[in-house]
Amino acid sequence: MKMRITLLKFSSESIHISRKYLLAVIILYLGYLNSNAQDVYENYREAWLKKSMEYLPELQVKTKVPLQMVRLIDDKESYQCVKAVKISEPPEFYQSGLKSNPDDLVLDFGEHLTGHVQFTIQSNVPAHAPVQLKIKFAEVPAEMKASFESYEGSLSKAWLQEEIVTLHTMPDTVLLPNRYAFRFIKFEILASAGDMDFFVSNVKCFSTTSAGADLFNETTLKDSEFQNILEISIKTLEECMQTVFEDGPKRDRRIWVGDLKLQALANYYSFGNFDLVKRGLYLYAATAAENGLVYGTLFEKPQPHPQKHFPIDYSLLYNTVLTDYYEASKEIGTLEDLWIVAKYQVLNILPNISEKGIFTPSPEWWYFIDWNNKLEKTAALHGIIIYSLTKTLELARLLKKEQELPQLQETIEKMRKAAREKYYDAEKMLFVSGPARQVSAASQVWMILSGTVSPEEGRNLFENLKKEKQVVWPVSPYLYHYVAEAMISCGMYEDAGNLIKDYWGGMAKKGADTFWEVYDPDNDFLSPYNSYMMNSYCHAWSCTPVYFLRKYNKELFP
Amino acid sequence: MKMRITLLKFSSESIHISRKYLLAVIILYLGYLNSNAQDVYENYREAWLKKSMEYLPELQVKTKVPLQMVRLIDDKESYQCVKAVKISEPPEFYQSGLKSNPDDLVLDFGEHLTGHVQFTIQSNVPAHAPVQLKIKFAEVPAEMKASFESYEGSLSKAWLQEEIVTLHTMPDTVLLPNRYAFRFIKFEILASAGDMDFFVSNVKCFSTTSAGADLFNETTLKDSEFQNILEISIKTLEECMQTVFEDGPKRDRRIWVGDLKLQALANYYSFGNFDLVKRGLYLYAATAAENGLVYGTLFEKPQPHPQKHFPIDYSLLYNTVLTDYYEASKEIGTLEDLWIVAKYQVLNILPNISEKGIFTPSPEWWYFIDWNNKLEKTAALHGIIIYSLTKTLELARLLKKEQELPQLQETIEKMRKAAREKYYDAEKMLFVSGPARQVSAASQVWMILSGTVSPEEGRNLFENLKKEKQVVWPVSPYLYHYVAEAMISCGMYEDAGNLIKDYWGGMAKKGADTFWEVYDPDNDFLSPYNSYMMNSYCHAWSCTPVYFLRKYNKELFP
Repeated sequence: MKMRITLLKFSSESIHISRKYLLAVIILYLGYLNSNAQDVYENYREAWLKKSMEYLPELQVKTKVPLQMVRLIDDKESYQCVKAVKISEPPEFYQSGLKSNPDDLVLDFGEHLTGHVQFTIQSNVPAHAPVQLKIKFAEVPAEMKASFESYEGSLSKAWLQEEIVTLHTMPDTVLLPNRYAFRFIKFEILASAGDMDFFVSNVKCFSTTSAGADLFNETTLKDSEFQNILEISIKTLEECMQTVFEDGPKRDRRIWVGDLKLQALANYYSFGNFDLVKRGLYLYAATAAENGLVYGTLFEKPQPHPQKHFPIDYSLLYNTVLTDYYEASKEIGTLEDLWIVAKYQVLNILPNISEKGIFTPSPEWWYFIDWNNKLEKTAALHGIIIYSLTKTLELARLLKKEQELPQLQETIEKMRKAAREKYYDAEKMLFVSGPARQVSAASQVWMILSGTVSPEEGRNLFENLKKEKQVVWPVSPYLYHYVAEAMISCGMYEDAGNLIKDYWGGMAKKGADTFWEVYDPDNDFLSPYNSYMMNSYCHAWSCTPVYFLRKYNKELFP
Repeated sequence: MKMRITLLKFSSESIHISRKYLLAVIILYLGYLNSNAQDVYENYREAWLKKSMEYLPELQVKTKVPLQMVRLIDDKESYQCVKAVKISEPPEFYQSGLKSNPDDLVLDFGEHLTGHVQFTIQSNVPAHAPVQLKIKFAEVPAEMKASFESYEGSLSKAWLQEEIVTLHTMPDTVLLPNRYAFRFIKFEILASAGDMDFFVSNVKCFSTTSAGADLFNETTLKDSEFQNILEISIKTLEECMQTVFEDGPKRDRRIWVGDLKLQALANYYSFGNFDLVKRGLYLYAATAAENGLVYGTLFEKPQPHPQKHFPIDYSLLYNTVLTDYYEASKEIGTLEDLWIVAKYQVLNILPNISEKGIFTPSPEWWYFIDWNNKLEKTAALHGIIIYSLTKTLELARLLKKEQELPQLQETIEKMRKAAREKYYDAEKMLFVSGPARQVSAASQVWMILSGTVSPEEGRNLFENLKKEKQVVWPVSPYLYHYVAEAMISCGMYEDAGNLIKDYWGGMAKKGADTFWEVYDPDNDFLSPYNSYMMNSYCHAWSCTPVYFLRKYNKELFP
């Protein structure tokens, strides 16, 4: 009330001062909102957590058995130079002792599985001493052939899946203590009495998923390569759908915003499991930071809690998961519940956008974009911010909440303008990034998806990329998804189809049962963790071919 | 009927033939009995097994916590050259991270424990990667300091107690999958994320025993050394009393006749748990061989079954467990139930005793006597057979069944006579064994216990042993038990007391919490398995000081 009276006292000469004053008030107001996100969220966190638990799915369990015993042989023509060759079938492979058989007992389930594992073990003579067994799991043949002992990568070696168990009684039926993601399993004796041999039998995987049935499975693509890619992408998604959308059932076994977005899209064109999307959205809201930002990733156990760091591109993409969800479900209640979270994602970054529309990330944030270490990310990040703000504006309009973020439209326009001014290289006719003016696919893609350029300009960008000698290309299926999405948004359906066939189809040709976390057609051993053993070979962000092939079916296959 | 008529036809001239004929009939009859042991036993096995289950004890569980954190240091003055030095107390030792603490987390429970182990683990940051932990258990400091990886002994390395577990969630409370026998426990990280540290807390052992209360604990010996030895021997027995009398809770975790005999004796002078003795006796009966012999050892799980070999000294000692049991309990029903088993032990060996009283073991048998590889065992085994036959005769008389083994008295006398003729060296005035006429404590001891010599002669044997230069002495507490028993049977109480103080007291002085499987005062590293790590440091056959000190209390401490 007092403030209003004060304002009324300003004379007409002081309009300039009054504008500055108003700006200060807005900034203070934003600061107030920001600093009070915690207070605002506190009113909702409990309800959000409760909702996330209401959407906790029941896991469907299927019992799977190994189909063949294989020998792993070096083979230059095979993916990662290792080939699994069948040597016997059940029950034959159960009839040799672990010691007396010259081959390791490597069993192949014939498909990627995520679940718990049980086996029976018997000895040739009554057990008079314990046996120490190593049971190793692998998603791909080379991972099985490699020695985990030789691992020198950057992530915890404990991700490499093996168990060491000591058994005193024979026969015994053992349910191993963890969940595993694998196609191959190996049994090995580490220690035992000299006169004892051991016979493994009845190996079973109780495989789990929350995916349910493929609601769209009546459609079979005429092109068998595309159909194969589609099936692998559905299997990839199915394996990653557990009690949340996991990024990888082998590693990291948790929900990440970037993966969630792509899984949700693929899910809308396969299992249509809206509850699991909502579970993820509410979990992020319930575990958001005090400033209101959602963290990039969170853990379900022992109780939902975030990993406390901000990949700011992921935080902003949260808002776009909401709009994608609405587009698929037309259900507005979830958006109404979570609008406050979307709003705080924006409020948190507004102070980092200058008057001229340049986004400067805070030092406590990082940004992912892609695994390619050579990538200069500034321009791509700028594009992602615009993309997310644009989607947030759609959301605000849908909910009739534009007045809560009155500066949004203006900010988007400022940023698009700034993008052209700061990141576009008129000579190369491409967006560039960083002091070295790096040309990358990422920069073009995100400028296209942000609406900074028209579809026609977008097509030109792709054309010009082809002419450029030094282009930083993606190494992850995650960024390749956005390349395909950008192509489609420019009407380049044939290019998008070719990309899917080349990139995801490339994995299929190399024997993928599920799509991989990392795929560089020229380097089977590329790993962000300095070891291909650590890579996840069933990774959520690779699951989107089903989305493209079904959503754009008519355009891709006219 | 026909046979009787035939016999009546013999003339008086044919008495010699008739005698031979009668002998043949007896041998055939024995053979008949022998070959039909299986048929006879079949009538009883089920009832014996049922009785063994009726006597299955309930385990008493106590929760124990570590008392101190220790550092293991090389120290030539300590047992096996390793000393555990206290570095902190609880809760201090729980406050350092496993990674940040320069010391390994080696916790000392201050006593030997047998049981299951649980701990809680927390991380410094929310767990974003699994951790692989090694948890190692040891009964003695040197075992903890040693690298199990370096083990090259003859028994299964899987006896060495360690677990490797992979944990994905923090905090977590973990109940390890096996039962362990230990005083020391070490936690070690094998693999984890670089930025994570881990805090173990709340380490607990749910220790188990079926021993119950020491019924004789009002008596405290004036001599504190003897009192200490007595307490250690009771603790040793208590730890070995589980669902059977185990020989060692670390290794082999099963019942052996030789250990059972000594445990039962110690038990009569401490816990008075007659049910556990009966459980053992019935289990041996139920799992005996088709020929009627009890096997040396048996396993309880998954269902009672023997390890199919015959240490013939152990099979025969079974009978003496029955007489010892009666002496302590005065309960005759068990003896009546199991007389048939005792009888078949004898019937099985009678064919191996020649007319001249020489016992020649069958090639399918072996015999233990002691762990000393240098020991020539023929004379000692001869003594054990006489000892067991003598006890069986006592048993037969008690049950008024002498007529079922009519040849027993005569056989014993023949064998005693043969012992003097074949194994006594008049020049050395000692019993000798084998072609090299080896002098050992074992030979004298078993000739004394068999009643082959008088107490006075027995004392002379011990005197003469002292004068002899090359004597094979025992290396196991098992045989030393019989040395002490032989001394007592000759009235050499002071010598027996000194032996207990020297031998078992020697272990106590070296820091034994429980008495060891193997003890050579001159060689801390002696092992029948080519590795001291594999030795059991809480071993049933070492538990008898309580028996001597309480049974012969008046004689030992006049």
